[in-house]
Parts: sequence; structure tokens; C-alpha cells
Amino acid sequence: MVSKNQRLPREVRERQMIDAAVRVFSRSGYHTASVEDVAEAAGISKPMVYIYLGSKERLFTACIHREADRVVEAVRAAVHPGEPPELGLWSALRVFFRFVADNRDSWAVLYQQARAQSAAFSKEVAAARCRVIDEITAMVVAGTRLPGGERIVSERDAEILARIAIGAADSLIDWLLEHPEESADSLVERVVNLALVGVERYNTGDIPPP
Amino acid sequence: MVSKNQRLPREVRERQMIDAAVRVFSRSGYHTASVEDVAEAAGISKPMVYIYLGSKERLFTACIHREADRVVEAVRAAVHPGEPPELGLWSALRVFFRFVADNRDSWAVLYQQARAQSAAFSKEVAAARCRVIDEITAMVVAGTRLPGGERIVSERDAEILARIAIGAADSLIDWLLEHPEESADSLVERVVNLALVGVERYNTGDIPPP
Repeated sequence: MVSKNQRLPREVRERQMIDAAVRVFSRSGYHTASVEDVAEAAGISKPMVYIYLGSKERLFTACIHREADRVVEAVRAAVHPGEPPELGLWSALRVFFRFVADNRDSWAVLYQQARAQSAAFSKEVAAARCRVIDEITAMVVAGTRLPGGERIVSERDAEILARIAIGAADSLIDWLLEHPEESADSLVERVVNLALVGVERYNTGDIPPP
Repeated sequence: MVSKNQRLPREVRERQMIDAAVRVFSRSGYHTASVEDVAEAAGISKPMVYIYLGSKERLFTACIHREADRVVEAVRAAVHPGEPPELGLWSALRVFFRFVADNRDSWAVLYQQARAQSAAFSKEVAAARCRVIDEITAMVVAGTRLPGGERIVSERDAEILARIAIGAADSLIDWLLEHPEESADSLVERVVNLALVGVERYNTGDIPPP
């Protein structure tokens, strides 16, 4: 007898498992959660989860991968080629904050757990960060090339800008998660205003040029 | 018979052990290093290290504490009350980068190991970050108060600025450690130039106001 479940393509089955795993890890935490809990939440037998994803560790790694893909995809979709990179950075920041605000529990647990759990998971998170940094660098490089092909910002400086953006975003996400009364949009507005205060103070000479 | 070593005050003895431990952990890594190695490097007997600092874990925690104190102290000394907070931020960034550049190996190993090793050590690092964030927030709050007592930047926004600064600094330190051909000063110069390019582009209308 072949049940409906058994006919699902591997990809769909895996997605179901990872969906369930994200929920279970978020609710219970990595240490407390068991492969059995994930199997139960996914409506799949425990041996099947082992056949597909091997171990709790590999399951958790798959969760990090999948969630990282989702973030990278969301950020990439927010940026439009040809627009000034500053606008791209604001859009990317806004989309990133919204993504986390909309997935608050899951993000907090997955990301914070991943960082704290072990060196192996930290590496997965670091790899995801690298992908985002590369995306932002490419965007800044593309957006600051003059029509003649010259660059306003060198490739190295574009990389630095990307590092600043990701570091700031990372740090602000922690703040956003500590302040549920704030929204992604209110946070971006605060950041934009701070930038404008800085520009204003520079223009009026309140800050001496460095 | 009382040797010269035994007459040292506890504080001095502890400092010697922590100095030695920082060197040993940096060279060998947390897992490989043993309390014996630290004792040998400090010229102190192994039982004595246990009496003073308990265990390898407590020894490593003491190293994190001490190195964090040194960073906080260096950053604090770079900031002068009453100066515009932007200048304070640049000085703090420069001093922080210099500190890490001058202690490249020790920082890379201690900080990166501390983050990757265990949740307990991550918490120590997080606590040190919080102290730096509080310092910067206080500096921004103090530096953006108008003579009448009004504020240019709310306390909440000052906190956000501090989060941006620490996140960016954290992220840039990783970059600096990956680029030994750069110096702390060249990195700060790049960051300042990027800020100026942004201001210039805003002023000339290359970036539409948000």
C-alpha cells in the first residue's frame, strides 16, 4: 500500500521536515528538541527523518541554510539595479528588519541558538553573512560606477561599506528583538533621521571636517 | 623558606597568570591549551593556578574579562567629554582598531574562540559589548544636549547610534584581521571618506532625500 505521503517528491518532503524543524527548534530550543518531535510535527516517521536529513545536527544545519536563503532572497528582491546604492541599502535594511520582525520567534531562537550552540553552526551563520556581504558589495560597486565607467567608490571601499551595513544591521536586529514596541519601519526611520542629523550637523559646521 | 614568588600580592600573581593564559590560549587555542601550559608559562605551579582561578574555564573567562576591560578602558580614554559625539565616535573607532591591530593574534584567537566556544563564553563577550554600548550611548547623549538642556538626539536614538557603531566596528574588525596590509588608521580613513562621499552625494542631490 502506498500512502499519499510516500508519493511526495523528496524536495517537498524535505521542505515539510524543515518547516516542522524550524517550528520545533524555535519552540523548544536546540538542546531540548528531539528528532522525534520534528518527525511528529511533520507527520513523518522518525526513521524517515533520519533517512532524509541524517541527524538532529544536520537537521538544524538545514534549518539555518533555509532561513538564510530566505533572508538573502528577501534582501535581493528589495534592491533594484541602477538605483543609487544608498537607496538600495535603506531598502535592504527595511526588508531585513521586516523579515525578522515577521519571523521574530523563529529568528531569535534559530539565529541566537545557532551563534551560541557550536563552532559548526557559527560557521553556517558566518557563511550566510558572507553571501549577504557579497550581494551588498556588488550592489554598491554597480551603483557607484559613473556613466564613463569610473568609480566613485573603490571595490575595497564598497566591501567596507557592505561590512558596515551588515554589522549595523546585525546589531540593530538584536535591538529590535529587545523592543517589540518598535517596528521595522520605525527603526529604519530612526536610522535615516540619525543620518540626516549627522549630515545637517556636518553642513552647518557643528562637526569639524575630519 | 619563603621564595620571592610566594610573597607577591594576590593581584600581581593573578595578573601574571592571566597574562600567561592570554598568550597560551592565543598560541594553542582553547581546546589544546592546558592549565599546565599556563602554569609553566607563568612560572607558577599548577596547583597554585587551580587555587587562584579554579579551572581552565574560569581561567579563560578571566582572560575575556581582562581583555574586555582593556578595550573598554582604551575606548573610554579616547573620548573627551564635551566634544561633538561624531568626533568621539571616530576616535573610539580608531582606538579600538589600533588596539586590535596591536593585539592581532591575541584578539583574533580570544574573541573568535570565545564566540565559537560555548554559550557561557558568548555571554561574557555579550556583557563586554553591553558595557561599550552603554559608554557610547552616554557619550552621544552628553554630546548632543544643547546648552538649554534640550536634546538633538533622543536617548533612544543615541542607543541606536551606539548599536550601529558597535555593530559596524565589530564587523570591520573582522575585515581588518583578514587584511593585515591595512592599518587601523587607513581603515578609519576609508570609513570617514565613505561618510563624506555619502554627505557629498546627498548635498548634490545624487541621492533623493529619503
